[in-house]
Amino acid sequence: MSQTTPAWAVDAIVRAGQRMDARGWVPATAGNISVRLDSERIAITRSGGHKGFLDAEAVMQVDLAGVPLTDAKPSAETLLHCQIYRLFPQAGAVLHGHSVAGTVLSMTEPGPIRLAQYEVLKAFEGQSTHDVVLALPVFDNDQDIARLASVAEPIIAAGTPLGYLIRGHGVYVWGPSMDVALARLEGLEFLLACELERRKLAR
Amino acid sequence: MSQTTPAWAVDAIVRAGQRMDARGWVPATAGNISVRLDSERIAITRSGGHKGFLDAEAVMQVDLAGVPLTDAKPSAETLLHCQIYRLFPQAGAVLHGHSVAGTVLSMTEPGPIRLAQYEVLKAFEGQSTHDVVLALPVFDNDQDIARLASVAEPIIAAGTPLGYLIRGHGVYVWGPSMDVALARLEGLEFLLACELERRKLAR
Amino acid sequence: MSQTTPAWAVDAIVRAGQRMDARGWVPATAGNISVRLDSERIAITRSGGHKGFLDAEAVMQVDLAGVPLTDAKPSAETLLHCQIYRLFPQAGAVLHGHSVAGTVLSMTEPGPIRLAQYEVLKAFEGQSTHDVVLALPVFDNDQDIARLASVAEPIIAAGTPLGYLIRGHGVYVWGPSMDVALARLEGLEFLLACELERRKLAR
Amino acid sequence: MSQTTPAWAVDAIVRAGQRMDARGWVPATAGNISVRLDSERIAITRSGGHKGFLDAEAVMQVDLAGVPLTDAKPSAETLLHCQIYRLFPQAGAVLHGHSVAGTVLSMTEPGPIRLAQYEVLKAFEGQSTHDVVLALPVFDNDQDIARLASVAEPIIAAGTPLGYLIRGHGVYVWGPSMDVALARLEGLEFLLACELERRKLAR
Repeated sequence: MSQTTPAWAVDAIVRAGQRMDARGWVPATAGNISVRLDSERIAITRSGGHKGFLDAEAVMQVDLAGVPLTDAKPSAETLLHCQIYRLFPQAGAVLHGHSVAGTVLSMTEPGPIRLAQYEVLKAFEGQSTHDVVLALPVFDNDQDIARLASVAEPIIAAGTPLGYLIRGHGVYVWGPSMDVALARLEGLEFLLACELERRKLAR
Repeated sequence: MSQTTPAWAVDAIVRAGQRMDARGWVPATAGNISVRLDSERIAITRSGGHKGFLDAEAVMQVDLAGVPLTDAKPSAETLLHCQIYRLFPQAGAVLHGHSVAGTVLSMTEPGPIRLAQYEVLKAFEGQSTHDVVLALPVFDNDQDIARLASVAEPIIAAGTPLGYLIRGHGVYVWGPSMDVALARLEGLEFLLACELERRKLAR
Repeated sequence: MSQTTPAWAVDAIVRAGQRMDARGWVPATAGNISVRLDSERIAITRSGGHKGFLDAEAVMQVDLAGVPLTDAKPSAETLLHCQIYRLFPQAGAVLHGHSVAGTVLSMTEPGPIRLAQYEVLKAFEGQSTHDVVLALPVFDNDQDIARLASVAEPIIAAGTPLGYLIRGHGVYVWGPSMDVALARLEGLEFLLACELERRKLAR
Repeated sequence: MSQTTPAWAVDAIVRAGQRMDARGWVPATAGNISVRLDSERIAITRSGGHKGFLDAEAVMQVDLAGVPLTDAKPSAETLLHCQIYRLFPQAGAVLHGHSVAGTVLSMTEPGPIRLAQYEVLKAFEGQSTHDVVLALPVFDNDQDIARLASVAEPIIAAGTPLGYLIRGHGVYVWGPSMDVALARLEGLEFLLACELERRKLAR
């Protein structure tokens, strides 16, 4: 039943992993990365392994329900990727990483984290001004990913332009292409780094 | 009406973007970079796109009023670059980046930010000692860039040796050549990083 | 009595040193790195030298008691590596590095450092959930390494899934292979960086 | 009167500059780097220019009194390098860089900065244990470098195993070879980064 993943998809995933690793956002075996292949299939990193050193073997295919189309074991978090592709037909790439700033903020306050008055907010979907308040939802972590997805679904479906954060676990961000998803991830991590510094100044 | 941008100008802009990206100063699609081509034209990064991965296609030409000489859409902030080239005939390159330190300081205090007693201040135009107090103006952000430029003009024209900061938005720095502009950007970001640490120690 | 160290072992050690150096975890001549060659021998970095610039000459062999099998002077800390290989037959690689976060936390609190509710905890041996509290032991530093090893032995032997920390001195982490040991080191350093930020927010 | 600087000396200086730049220790045109050529001559970076992008043209020769042996303008700080080579016949390389941690600590406390109980202290000359207190002198900055050198001379001559710090200006570190000087610089910057974090925790 195995299918060959197109080279462009493997390449996009491998390079995204290298970029995230250079920023320190995929420590240990954390993080996962996917792209949409067509209306029914996605290519996604397999369970385990370091995301800074990926190759074609580290990428598998699943359908939008998370059922493997490749002879390999998917990560449990594959379901969170599938949820985004199902909810947003225009989503072309999904990134999940763990940063120090995002992890710390998710563990020291209940959420949502409100971001306002940053020019970088214009990097996110539908935003044309810095003069706005956007909320980053924070969902409690849960090893039962189906349950986590179900708790998160109404909030994500209602629109979360910044993506979302899982407590002690990191961010999920997406976009129409890998380049846009990577730019949003970088924008969001920049904003979370700013917020962490501001919390330290404000105490 | 399109004109070919000389290779040296494209190269200077591409390498400046890579350097700024390596330092984390052009998150998402933030930042823009320009060089003066002659007394009437500048080469500048187009609207959108990541500034760490530029190529010749990502660079366009405008006149000193910001009117495109290339068949492409300029960034709204092009006007801020043009303003500097008009005010300072000796300006050869302009850099705009977003750092965590600059963004945070611009949002937590009214400005100007006063910098004193740093040896690195000697990297800025006309400075020959550390024993000086220089002010970095902070302008409020505004999506109406023409209005922002008009508010800033008297202060910039009066002389701002360190460049200036836009609130929640990042710094503008310039110099007679790209190398000097990059050195000043690096010097200013170093000083802002020091100031942020000092604020945390002082609370 | 000198023996040639297999190329795979030299290569694993050299690349681990480069990776640790890129992260800033082997400042000056700090840190040491080893792999198990078989049930009776390990390959380990020699005393002195920068661990980011290793070559075959910088690697020597010792037996599990730390006796040199190569005509070279072993680092005093070789005994801490040998201890891990003796206690854990499945240990294939041991890493010791110094980070700012680990060094600071080890000097500002008595230890152990308790880590809980992080998804990254699943990178460590036998962990399947974030919903756990793991303790990182902190041993006092001692230039008498045999004495330090003897103080640490009962605690390490009882099981320290995160590795351990020596006060003012850095972490020891291991795994069945170099890749797993490196992933655990990266995971642990990520967690210590988070803990340091949380201490600053909590004061 | 110009003399050709040996390739090994140029190479050692160029690579040291690249390493310091990668760590962020030579912002703008800050920092300078030298090696001893023989008992009467040193090779040193010229005034100005970025120390991360050096070449043979950027290196000049001076005698131990700082008199140019090359047709070029020496940096004013050349005298501080000469002082070290005169005082310590075994000094083979001298490094001066500016880090955020060193700059901030030098501006927020009078000095000396006392460092104790760090394993990394063993990287410095004559140290064999962490169980020691070493003092890093902090001299006030002065654009009159001859006067600064004269104030510093008795303290440096009496022995400053960690090097020294100039207020708002950065560290001076040396060693018998460039490799040892670089290792000590890295060790000292690591310790200063630790001290800065401890100050933030302790407030």
